Amino acid sequence: MAVARLARLVLGPGAVRGRGAVAGSLPRCAGPGRAPRRLFSNRNILVELEEGAGVAVMKMKSPPVNSLSLDFLTEFSISLEKLENDRGCRGVILTSAVPKIFSAGLDIKEMCGKSAEHYAEFWRAVQEMWLKLYKSNMVTIAAINGNCPAGGCLMAVSCDYRIMAENPKYSIGLNETQLGIVAPFWFKDTMVNTIGHRATERSLQLGLLYSASDALKIGIVDELVPEEKVLNAAAATMSQWLAIPDYARQISKSMMRKPTLDRMLTHRESDIQNFVSFVTKDSIQKSLQTYMERLKQRKG
Amino acid sequence: MAVARLARLVLGPGAVRGRGAVAGSLPRCAGPGRAPRRLFSNRNILVELEEGAGVAVMKMKSPPVNSLSLDFLTEFSISLEKLENDRGCRGVILTSAVPKIFSAGLDIKEMCGKSAEHYAEFWRAVQEMWLKLYKSNMVTIAAINGNCPAGGCLMAVSCDYRIMAENPKYSIGLNETQLGIVAPFWFKDTMVNTIGHRATERSLQLGLLYSASDALKIGIVDELVPEEKVLNAAAATMSQWLAIPDYARQISKSMMRKPTLDRMLTHRESDIQNFVSFVTKDSIQKSLQTYMERLKQRKG
Amino acid sequence: MAVARLARLVLGPGAVRGRGAVAGSLPRCAGPGRAPRRLFSNRNILVELEEGAGVAVMKMKSPPVNSLSLDFLTEFSISLEKLENDRGCRGVILTSAVPKIFSAGLDIKEMCGKSAEHYAEFWRAVQEMWLKLYKSNMVTIAAINGNCPAGGCLMAVSCDYRIMAENPKYSIGLNETQLGIVAPFWFKDTMVNTIGHRATERSLQLGLLYSASDALKIGIVDELVPEEKVLNAAAATMSQWLAIPDYARQISKSMMRKPTLDRMLTHRESDIQNFVSFVTKDSIQKSLQTYMERLKQRKG
Repeated sequence: MAVARLARLVLGPGAVRGRGAVAGSLPRCAGPGRAPRRLFSNRNILVELEEGAGVAVMKMKSPPVNSLSLDFLTEFSISLEKLENDRGCRGVILTSAVPKIFSAGLDIKEMCGKSAEHYAEFWRAVQEMWLKLYKSNMVTIAAINGNCPAGGCLMAVSCDYRIMAENPKYSIGLNETQLGIVAPFWFKDTMVNTIGHRATERSLQLGLLYSASDALKIGIVDELVPEEKVLNAAAATMSQWLAIPDYARQISKSMMRKPTLDRMLTHRESDIQNFVSFVTKDSIQKSLQTYMERLKQRKG
Repeated sequence: MAVARLARLVLGPGAVRGRGAVAGSLPRCAGPGRAPRRLFSNRNILVELEEGAGVAVMKMKSPPVNSLSLDFLTEFSISLEKLENDRGCRGVILTSAVPKIFSAGLDIKEMCGKSAEHYAEFWRAVQEMWLKLYKSNMVTIAAINGNCPAGGCLMAVSCDYRIMAENPKYSIGLNETQLGIVAPFWFKDTMVNTIGHRATERSLQLGLLYSASDALKIGIVDELVPEEKVLNAAAATMSQWLAIPDYARQISKSMMRKPTLDRMLTHRESDIQNFVSFVTKDSIQKSLQTYMERLKQRKG
Repeated sequence: MAVARLARLVLGPGAVRGRGAVAGSLPRCAGPGRAPRRLFSNRNILVELEEGAGVAVMKMKSPPVNSLSLDFLTEFSISLEKLENDRGCRGVILTSAVPKIFSAGLDIKEMCGKSAEHYAEFWRAVQEMWLKLYKSNMVTIAAINGNCPAGGCLMAVSCDYRIMAENPKYSIGLNETQLGIVAPFWFKDTMVNTIGHRATERSLQLGLLYSASDALKIGIVDELVPEEKVLNAAAATMSQWLAIPDYARQISKSMMRKPTLDRMLTHRESDIQNFVSFVTKDSIQKSLQTYMERLKQRKG
């Protein structure tokens, strides 16, 4: 009698679930008469938690491009932590409420004309967002319904599964190098874990942005669907993932990701120092200030 | 004059062979008048060693599903060690004598109602089987002629090459998670070495079982052939591998696998402790005993 | 405002370039009236540096097969170092001036009838060639216009990008095992970084040589073009790579390659000792001397 047969009979798929909720209906069309739904929203993110399904949808809603500002990042980490501690939530779908953009990545305004303390605080918040997302015990699915460069791509590849809109105008990738910037080592590690060493090396050296179809070929995303079906597809995939006993899935996920998480934690402070000393360079600040003034003039 | 040209002329492909035998005829159709053939069989495994070819076929014959019991594992390790020390044997084909199943993996009966010492002994035997197979100096080819979940899949991916029957009913994969169980880290490492980090992460989180054709696409197996040709195909592949000088092949194999083997050896005792403390949990034992009683009633 | 948009406006692609030159015309058809071109040649390698483009072409010209002799390797490392220190050079195309062969790999004559000191010096030169090439700050592109086994393949996979002639007669691979020889660990590491663990394991165990089309499939090369277009294609690709700011590209490259480089540097001396003790074995030397005598007789 092999383990598989016994376990199926004895344990059942839910026997070792760490969380109370069980999979069921999905958040795709919750309306009146459906399972109770809790909302909590802040300035940048709207969270809809359908309790019956145990699935939350986190909608980034910071127009024009869901830039990752300090405020945004802080709210993101707090929202995710809240869900993490909620026994009624077993999975999170991350998506955008802003048309045509998933997230454009880090907010440049946080890097300009501020104190070294501010830069350090900002960078720590970027790290915290990634740590929370990459080590989440919940099932995390990115529903990529728009452009997804740089920090937006990092968010996506930190999830467990990625579904992207089949729109030829959308692209995804770690394009920092194209802009004269270097992706930090933990962006790189997350990418290597997703598409392997060679594809990451070429990708980072050239700062490549992949069309949706190329992203599928190279493995940055797992699935393409028509734009209007991205959320439904994410919900359907979520129900498959939630059919797996939580505890075993969580341990398996942690086994795969812990070395990468530990490596970042070990070098967290030096990574902050690196960022601060880069961004406080006179030449960089000068460029940034010139740019900020141009921005104000345009708006004025 | 480059190394390649010289070595071909001077050394010849067999010059540095560590084992005495040379490749030649193959075990596919040995009959009367062919090279001498030695058999040694025990309760669970039949070994046929064709001396001319230097190739042994290990046939797992423990119906109904070739479960990896303590007895089975012990016999497996002893048989493999015997072949390893036999200078007349350079390659092993691992296959099943039971229709429709390669191996269903670990035997649940070894985990139920026994002492902590027994569980530790059992787990050490599972480790030993893997250590012996993964570090074998011989060429190891899995001829997968049936279903191949969990521990069966581990055996297959620990070989040098995998040929699977093109039967849509057969599947292969590390499906432990589906059953509420977690594959140990060295199962995971062996899988990462075979299909890479991303495919392993998804595979382990979901406990995926792949159809033969999907297994080929993702790289869990190297080749599909019609079911009746699996053994012949394994023999043909074996002759290609045995055309390579043993010593150079063995060093190359060891260079690729040593870090993974060392990692397991370093953590071997704690891995045993982990297993024992999991399996001795009251809740787990209760489930297992209920199941064993049901089993007896069915048979009664 | 996201980083991407700001950086594009403020920094521009050349803002953080570490080298003085900018991309422009390409070395594909430099004739009279074109940008100044500097040549430096030695016995084994011809270097053509087109200053306007900032691109050098290194042509290996040591017939019959561009064997990597001590002289060749020394000249190679010196030439590369020269270009590395030349602020007018940002990229290197590595190719062969000998028809039908890129490079056949290590020169066997350096391993025969010489002193242990000579063997050590030779092996250090092999290591140095790889170190210089793999860690180069310049963009390195292999224009593989002929056969590319063993050490030739190592050179190719150490570049940033590989374009191979679509000629069915040419093959590429680390075929050492076929000759009873073992590729050193840093050959292996470079291959794993290019095609992954599983493909490398099979490749090294069998000493596989891949046809151009198989090499493309497995990822040893990035692109196939008709033979007469290899250099033009390399130049076109180079211009894409040089459009990326040098500094960010260099840091990204180093981030990907440093662990592999460090590992070799850590074990450099023991790697030399391993080689010397292998090559000074009586049995190996005897084989080599027999071969050398045969060679002389043929020529005589």
